[in-house]
Amino acid sequence: MEELIRYGEKFFDELEIAVYRSKDVSANVELNEISMASTRSGAVTILRGIKDKRLGLAIIDSDEPARIREAIEQAAKMAKLNSRDEKWVSLPEPGKYREKPKPNYELKEASPDQLVEMLVRGIKLAREKDENVIVAGGEGGVSWEERHIVNSHGIDVFQEGGAAFFFLELVGRKEGTVTPGIFDFDARRDLKLDVDGVVERAVQKVKWAYDVKASKNEEVPIILGPWAIAGLLSYALFPAFSGERLVKETTPLAGKVGEKISSDVLTIYDDPFHELAIEPVIADGEGVPTRKNVLIENGTFRGFVWDNYWAKVYGTESTGNGKRDLRSGGINIGFHSMVIENGKRSLEDMISEIEHGYFVDGFQGTHSSNPDNGNFAVTANPAFLIEDGEVKGASVFLVAGNVYELLKQASEVSKEQIVMPFMTTIITPFVKFENVKIAGK
Amino acid sequence: MEELIRYGEKFFDELEIAVYRSKDVSANVELNEISMASTRSGAVTILRGIKDKRLGLAIIDSDEPARIREAIEQAAKMAKLNSRDEKWVSLPEPGKYREKPKPNYELKEASPDQLVEMLVRGIKLAREKDENVIVAGGEGGVSWEERHIVNSHGIDVFQEGGAAFFFLELVGRKEGTVTPGIFDFDARRDLKLDVDGVVERAVQKVKWAYDVKASKNEEVPIILGPWAIAGLLSYALFPAFSGERLVKETTPLAGKVGEKISSDVLTIYDDPFHELAIEPVIADGEGVPTRKNVLIENGTFRGFVWDNYWAKVYGTESTGNGKRDLRSGGINIGFHSMVIENGKRSLEDMISEIEHGYFVDGFQGTHSSNPDNGNFAVTANPAFLIEDGEVKGASVFLVAGNVYELLKQASEVSKEQIVMPFMTTIITPFVKFENVKIAGK
Repeated sequence: MEELIRYGEKFFDELEIAVYRSKDVSANVELNEISMASTRSGAVTILRGIKDKRLGLAIIDSDEPARIREAIEQAAKMAKLNSRDEKWVSLPEPGKYREKPKPNYELKEASPDQLVEMLVRGIKLAREKDENVIVAGGEGGVSWEERHIVNSHGIDVFQEGGAAFFFLELVGRKEGTVTPGIFDFDARRDLKLDVDGVVERAVQKVKWAYDVKASKNEEVPIILGPWAIAGLLSYALFPAFSGERLVKETTPLAGKVGEKISSDVLTIYDDPFHELAIEPVIADGEGVPTRKNVLIENGTFRGFVWDNYWAKVYGTESTGNGKRDLRSGGINIGFHSMVIENGKRSLEDMISEIEHGYFVDGFQGTHSSNPDNGNFAVTANPAFLIEDGEVKGASVFLVAGNVYELLKQASEVSKEQIVMPFMTTIITPFVKFENVKIAGK
Repeated sequence: MEELIRYGEKFFDELEIAVYRSKDVSANVELNEISMASTRSGAVTILRGIKDKRLGLAIIDSDEPARIREAIEQAAKMAKLNSRDEKWVSLPEPGKYREKPKPNYELKEASPDQLVEMLVRGIKLAREKDENVIVAGGEGGVSWEERHIVNSHGIDVFQEGGAAFFFLELVGRKEGTVTPGIFDFDARRDLKLDVDGVVERAVQKVKWAYDVKASKNEEVPIILGPWAIAGLLSYALFPAFSGERLVKETTPLAGKVGEKISSDVLTIYDDPFHELAIEPVIADGEGVPTRKNVLIENGTFRGFVWDNYWAKVYGTESTGNGKRDLRSGGINIGFHSMVIENGKRSLEDMISEIEHGYFVDGFQGTHSSNPDNGNFAVTANPAFLIEDGEVKGASVFLVAGNVYELLKQASEVSKEQIVMPFMTTIITPFVKFENVKIAGK
């Protein structure tokens, strides 16, 4: 790599070479059957070079030095054609990195067989537990990644690691009722995926869903599950923590550092080193050391996250939140592993105290939320009616509101903490909110 | 391949090996600058084997014989774990193929440089023509594919070829007005992409869009452009032509073969050999010969399209419409190159006759259309107001209706025929519809 950097310096004032090698094995389920087993592997090199504040960016599907040389030349040609980015300061300098967590090489050698077996066991278990259940979909996957980020300022970070995930989607059919698709999932840094737990939780939710209850316009306590929380916060809240949005004046959190933006029960941080984190990276996509960044501490907003570019434009430091988009090659501000701190009591205890309210497993339509102001309008589905401390059936309703008002209504977080590996990866308890206005459907 | 088929026959009653090698070069634009140049290449092999009506499907990112052997073993293990598909009949037999169109090898050797140059020229031209224009986005790309489909019944088809495409998205800002994103595009089987034409058409639409006009509830003639037609028909109409939907009773066209379903002016067929087609394949994803399939002839519905599986379930023949999904490995019924036959008069002539109506360039929200019944609810944006035979400004409105009712209101198709390479590839004229109910916004 050293030699390639030297070669690149003939063309650029500064440059960065990022090599990603990956191996992904997965198996899929469709309608109670294994529909596919796949093994994919590949290498991608992304070349970013800057000459006279002009940027060149080239991507190739290879990690061969000869091809990387070509990419350097390609990016150099592009940089010549682009105009100057007067805001450009420089690529990052090396920093102090945490010790790398030991990779689990079992994941590097994983085969689709192991996933097929898990899925077959999951399908069998689900249908034993409830003969009316169809396993409509599902997937088991293991991803392994080796990333090497090098730049002409001396950054040279290599890290490898993997994660496994598993999800099932069940649909129940009984006495003319067809339930909505009911999901459950697990994700870990080893292959001990909790198939039994996934099936048990999903089957329980299907059982609840057989009994369809009407919903009406009212104000009620609701408990949001990990899927619902991840969906809503990924679109309505998390983008507002981005320093780029602070610079561009598109975050409602501008000027609010140190202010209360939620109730005391919420503490939210981004922490790749959390024990449940599935991607414990010591450096971000541009080689800047990662760290735990507290966003909300007992309700108080603690600050924004940054990548190298926007941090320098604003006159601050990168917080290690430059995430590489392997399709476009670009760096965007993002999160490694969002964590909502958990509490002391179980979900069951929390449910047992609700006289009349809902447990919302998933929200639909979260992607149309507006992070500029926090407004959202979503459909709670599946949602489960709680009466006298017990789940009594399933329902669907609308919730339209503002995420910052909702955050102030948070009253408790559960002891359980679940890893939600889709959308923004989030490790979250179940969260209860008081007096939420819902519209019956 | 012969040897691999023989190896697979040890495990399966019948099997298919499909190898796809691809090379994609592309360059992207963001905010007046080239943001990326990429070169991607790779190989995917999809193995489908059937043993005692049990299906095994494996995908690997490789075309190496040793790896294909592993995939065969992988699929065999999976087939054992799956249950019998009693509907399974057999993989297809060889058929009579058309002569392969000569591939354009210039496309195989295309480099991102050529695309970068086109984009830079496009950006320059657009900003010369209108200094208030920002080239918000755009892409130039060349795809090259070599596909080899072999099965144990003797199918052995190899074909290679490529296509190039180009699009720009312009936004105009003038006197406080910011136009919506205005797209235009071209796609061909050579590198002679019409950059000047794309810019000219897009800049013209931006000019129209500076003048924002209110819309109101009324019944008006509208002319739909290629982007709007492709969006609406891809989601609301084309799925209804699928034989799978006939079997599953989810198409409103069941029992309507030979009946009028649109006005006389519409003739629609799927034809990979059309002179403008960008993917002139002689065989579909399972090696069945492709052909021109007429769907609507002067308003009369002519029949469904089929892949091998659903055709045999229904007791008919595949029409060569089995399309391979390279992600899931599966075969779905789809189209190669939809064509709407063109007419005699130019778009300009059609516009010149409209006293009061709209020219709709794009529809938003088409993906939520319901192909089970043809219902749709979309936002026309950008849409251009026509008064006294001339475009007078831009507007936004809603159209909610049923695609089959709309098809009966078609009154003319333009002489111009445009290739729309996104969503379902479609070669379409501008189409005029009478008395369309719109809701002002």
